[in-house]
Amino acid sequence: MVAAMLGLVQTPSGPLVQRDLPAPDASGEAIIRLEVGGICATDLEIVRGYMGFSGVLGHEWVGVVEAAPDAASAWVGRRVVGDINCPCGACPTCRANRPTHCPNRTVLGIAGRDGAFRERLALPVANLHAVPDGVAPEAAVFVEPLAAALEITEQIHVRPTDRVAVLGVGRLGQLCARVLALTGAEVVGVGRSPARLALLPRSVRAVAAADLDERGFDVVVDCTGAAAGLARATELVRPRGTIVLKTTVHEAAGVAPTPWVIDEVTLVGSRCGPFEPALRALAAGLVDPTPLITARFPLGDGVAALAAAARPEHVKVLLEP
Amino acid sequence: MVAAMLGLVQTPSGPLVQRDLPAPDASGEAIIRLEVGGICATDLEIVRGYMGFSGVLGHEWVGVVEAAPDAASAWVGRRVVGDINCPCGACPTCRANRPTHCPNRTVLGIAGRDGAFRERLALPVANLHAVPDGVAPEAAVFVEPLAAALEITEQIHVRPTDRVAVLGVGRLGQLCARVLALTGAEVVGVGRSPARLALLPRSVRAVAAADLDERGFDVVVDCTGAAAGLARATELVRPRGTIVLKTTVHEAAGVAPTPWVIDEVTLVGSRCGPFEPALRALAAGLVDPTPLITARFPLGDGVAALAAAARPEHVKVLLEP
Repeated sequence: MVAAMLGLVQTPSGPLVQRDLPAPDASGEAIIRLEVGGICATDLEIVRGYMGFSGVLGHEWVGVVEAAPDAASAWVGRRVVGDINCPCGACPTCRANRPTHCPNRTVLGIAGRDGAFRERLALPVANLHAVPDGVAPEAAVFVEPLAAALEITEQIHVRPTDRVAVLGVGRLGQLCARVLALTGAEVVGVGRSPARLALLPRSVRAVAAADLDERGFDVVVDCTGAAAGLARATELVRPRGTIVLKTTVHEAAGVAPTPWVIDEVTLVGSRCGPFEPALRALAAGLVDPTPLITARFPLGDGVAALAAAARPEHVKVLLEP
Repeated sequence: MVAAMLGLVQTPSGPLVQRDLPAPDASGEAIIRLEVGGICATDLEIVRGYMGFSGVLGHEWVGVVEAAPDAASAWVGRRVVGDINCPCGACPTCRANRPTHCPNRTVLGIAGRDGAFRERLALPVANLHAVPDGVAPEAAVFVEPLAAALEITEQIHVRPTDRVAVLGVGRLGQLCARVLALTGAEVVGVGRSPARLALLPRSVRAVAAADLDERGFDVVVDCTGAAAGLARATELVRPRGTIVLKTTVHEAAGVAPTPWVIDEVTLVGSRCGPFEPALRALAAGLVDPTPLITARFPLGDGVAALAAAARPEHVKVLLEP
């Protein structure tokens, strides 16, 4: 166990690298040595102060279990990823099997709990998932956003005959488009950046936002990260089609709900998803997220890494201890 | 066949009763003698100019078939109601079995087609539904809005263990609450008007809007007819719950979509519904809409009837030739 630890911390005056973090509180939880962390749009929002979070940043990570409570000692030495929501397990929401919506939950690096961008992190053993042999750390670090993409097909039935538009081909849109194309549906990835459009795999048709002249999509996924995404999705979806909401924006959408009523559109908010299918997809090679890696920084350069991730030429920026 | 006909007509300068309407065009359609018409919130919106519609008003009605094309002569003499959407039958939307969303459709008394508030109306035979014996005209006139209420359970699965809130207990909210209570769910009808709350049946718990201190509803139906309804529904629904949108408002909702994403809420726009289940529900006495009738006017007093229907003390105002 290292004595004083390095970590990337959000403070009221912004993010900074601290080199004297105490060891994480091990009481009842696993202690994990970080191998790789990934920067997500939510991290960038937190850095801009939206969540009011202070503490160690980071919720996309892969690592190796270094210590665990006695009853879970079999985890020690295993490469793992982990669910970021830590539910109370006792409230009506948890008992109704919706633990990711527990009102008492803490969320790794997002709410009430220090995150993963430090040399050692702590997480309940119940949250851990073993990374299969053959899945490299640089792929496993995508499990959390890949699970969020799989949450779409966990929530709605996407048919092989559907036409699907994914608006926004950044970090999350890239993964959503890949997952949705696995259904056999015709998937169009719509974005502004030629460089990001070029990253889409063969299974997804890339269309520049300004060139999109199709309408009537069965499913439209808003991954734009912008308030205007919902109005655009409303224009593009067919009557009785489905809009999947992945964008969290803090301003009002400026959309009148009337078209949703007249066209009987369904809107589905979509957040965190299931880790095991994400690990299976990586192990089977169904999704390869690694072309999305555009930079790697040492954890000690975490502030520069955050700044890089906020620039449009970057997609996924990784952090390594 | 009467020569010059009476009807309630929306003109660019507002609604007026005309006594010299020509007979409806019978080419290929049934001609129906109106027995009773019902005024709906959409009629009041049209009168305020929202839809840009000019022509005979009215889409809630019951009548007796007076003439029909030869191949459909068996309809003559039968009491009928009818689907208000007249689809083209040939476009991709129609062929995908979504005729109520046909982009080429006309809609009785709403879009591109004269409505029902006249002595004789015309409608395609394919739209007709026979009214079962034992369903009085004053009940059958509610079939169209009752079908719109049943559209909710056509679209989403409401479980007997669900807690459901219906916001707004006006014309449509009253029917939605009655239909939803049939599922066995615990249904709360939320409204401002003590008189309207008092009209709710025993199967629905009436709660004054100012007194509602419950949250976490599995399903919230917005029948408020007001832009603020969606924000209130968002406060009241549980994580992963469903908001059903019945309100058409023309201003922006002023709601940020972020809570829908974080709580993974589903929103479902809901419009016209199936007539046959509505007729079955009336025939079986599962729903009794007649207590909602607060006034009856002769068709010749149609302008006064519209004014009455716009006043809060009225729920359903009927028109009779």
